[in-house]
Amino acid sequence: MITVPGKDFRTIRLDPADPACVQIIDQRRLPHRFEVVELRSHADGAFAIREMLVRGAPLIGATAAWSLYLAAVEARESGAPLSVQLDFVREAAVLLAATRPTAVNLRWALERMLSELNSVTDSDGMVERFGREAEAVCIEDIAISRSIGEHGAGLLAKIAEKKNGETVNVLTHCNAGALATVNWGTATAPIYVARERGIPVHVWVDETRPRNQGSQLTAWELARAGIEHTVIVDNAGGHLMQHGMVDILITGTDRTTRTGDVANKIGTYLKALAASDNGVPFYVALPSTTIDWSITDGLADIPIEERGADEVTHVTGLDGDQLRTVRTVSKYSPAKNYAFDVTPSRLVTGLITERGICTASEEGLLGLFPERARDGA
Amino acid sequence: MITVPGKDFRTIRLDPADPACVQIIDQRRLPHRFEVVELRSHADGAFAIREMLVRGAPLIGATAAWSLYLAAVEARESGAPLSVQLDFVREAAVLLAATRPTAVNLRWALERMLSELNSVTDSDGMVERFGREAEAVCIEDIAISRSIGEHGAGLLAKIAEKKNGETVNVLTHCNAGALATVNWGTATAPIYVARERGIPVHVWVDETRPRNQGSQLTAWELARAGIEHTVIVDNAGGHLMQHGMVDILITGTDRTTRTGDVANKIGTYLKALAASDNGVPFYVALPSTTIDWSITDGLADIPIEERGADEVTHVTGLDGDQLRTVRTVSKYSPAKNYAFDVTPSRLVTGLITERGICTASEEGLLGLFPERARDGA
Repeated sequence: MITVPGKDFRTIRLDPADPACVQIIDQRRLPHRFEVVELRSHADGAFAIREMLVRGAPLIGATAAWSLYLAAVEARESGAPLSVQLDFVREAAVLLAATRPTAVNLRWALERMLSELNSVTDSDGMVERFGREAEAVCIEDIAISRSIGEHGAGLLAKIAEKKNGETVNVLTHCNAGALATVNWGTATAPIYVARERGIPVHVWVDETRPRNQGSQLTAWELARAGIEHTVIVDNAGGHLMQHGMVDILITGTDRTTRTGDVANKIGTYLKALAASDNGVPFYVALPSTTIDWSITDGLADIPIEERGADEVTHVTGLDGDQLRTVRTVSKYSPAKNYAFDVTPSRLVTGLITERGICTASEEGLLGLFPERARDGA
Repeated sequence: MITVPGKDFRTIRLDPADPACVQIIDQRRLPHRFEVVELRSHADGAFAIREMLVRGAPLIGATAAWSLYLAAVEARESGAPLSVQLDFVREAAVLLAATRPTAVNLRWALERMLSELNSVTDSDGMVERFGREAEAVCIEDIAISRSIGEHGAGLLAKIAEKKNGETVNVLTHCNAGALATVNWGTATAPIYVARERGIPVHVWVDETRPRNQGSQLTAWELARAGIEHTVIVDNAGGHLMQHGMVDILITGTDRTTRTGDVANKIGTYLKALAASDNGVPFYVALPSTTIDWSITDGLADIPIEERGADEVTHVTGLDGDQLRTVRTVSKYSPAKNYAFDVTPSRLVTGLITERGICTASEEGLLGLFPERARDGA
């Protein structure tokens, strides 16, 4: 199903041979296994989101939309009266909404799908509308990512020019790649577009403990796209910046305040400090859907999810051709797992959005999104 | 053999029941296995250093000293003429010196032992002198660590006082603990002494990728000593400091310049930046033997060791009761492994030495070590 991130890549799609089947990649197995999983019911979709076969806010939203489409197909199959079918679909939405409590795009996608129900007069119409809308969610996500890529690639082009065409070294943290969206990604989109334009890019990939999204997902998609890259431990980025080995730091974000504070994977703040200390520009790539227009102080107002300690104490990898989980920390030592941190806007050089690049400030963001002027805190 | 770090703990000792046997801990197995290994020849000692059953500069020095003692015992057993025995011991020293090319204490300990040969007139005298000298190396190391602990504990006491007796939260990176020395450690010594004085301390233990010396060694020795601690990934420290959850950052060092720049485990620089950004004091604990009086610019003059990529791509841990190594990075993604970074003195609040605490500056260091005034670069 899936080719190389970029042109024809899709992390989720309707099976072209079977309109009752949605195909995804089981991202838990990457980079060791590439397994396409077939979703055949909304329960399959809920499982995929809850168990993190898919992750990344935009992709979670797309998977929720397609799962509700599958619920509509299931409802039609039942042959029950239309009102019973509509109830079935609404209950499926409740189930799906509960899979990942913090993912904003999940609820956004479900509400968008459910609003279609108002114009439904028969089962066939419902299935057709849901299929069209789920695909629209995906197409729009691809367009937003592509647009972020175009704007960001301009930054990389300027650096390449300054370096007389020498390779541009990008450092990234976590996976804000094609695998977190439907295609292109957010932080990686500028890299893929730069490749199309012939700009030579090498990516330093932070391992991203504890879940290793960098070494397992970002490295996988860059390798597949044939983009030069090197995996490093999260500790190494400061040393690289001190020695001029990083030209630009680009990450994604899980939530950005109206004033440009950025919540992202734990450890982003440390890299931002090193970038600032060494004069390395730090850009954050984001679809505007991740901006929380109602808050202005990221450190005070963005709650930081604490996840299970087992993500810190255990590591999964390949032993021969067997996937195994090993415990690295003794059971006599407790562990804590804070999933995100907040980087204050003063450490962020700029934000790359689908509408262009701006400073990490209320002024900068409202310049690109003037319609948000009245949504303030 | 070994009890709890502190009072009666020793990472290396002559077997009290057998003067031809030196006992060490196989640190590669910690925290999952506590295995005492018996060294019965200088070749056993060389193997233990090369294969990292022992690590940490002071402990490497002590192991080299005891290995040369074993060489003297072997020489005596041979019954060969004294001149042949002396040659045997000198060759053993050459072999031992080659085990870890960068460890300064290794060569220092060997030279100290060999200087004893000048006064040797018979085999029994050689064995006796070597045994006494190897033990002296250990006793002196314990005294230096203890002294660092006394000075550092004063800092913790002051923080506890300011907090009205509330628990003092220390963050540390890597293992500069009892396991890296003969006892007490450098960065951990103040914690052990504070415990004796009834100061409540909790330690945030950085995992310390890629070799996990924090989660595997520091956590182990703190657990054994009954000191409250929590393992975190290396990414988490900045978030903790932003939220007032760290009162002091203490690390060890592998080499310190005359001007107070500090080379230490990769990632130390990132924690130092976060400490500075959040007003958290950062102290480096060091025996004066790790000061390189001949250099003044750490970033330019301290070479950074690059180690094998497999330390980044593979992780070892416990699967059931089996120790296994798993590959976490795909073989299609290359990795780089820089072992150390340099923290400029401007980010270091102070240095804790066996002679007291000083600022991280030439002036500060010469105040404690005035005899070094003329060793300058």
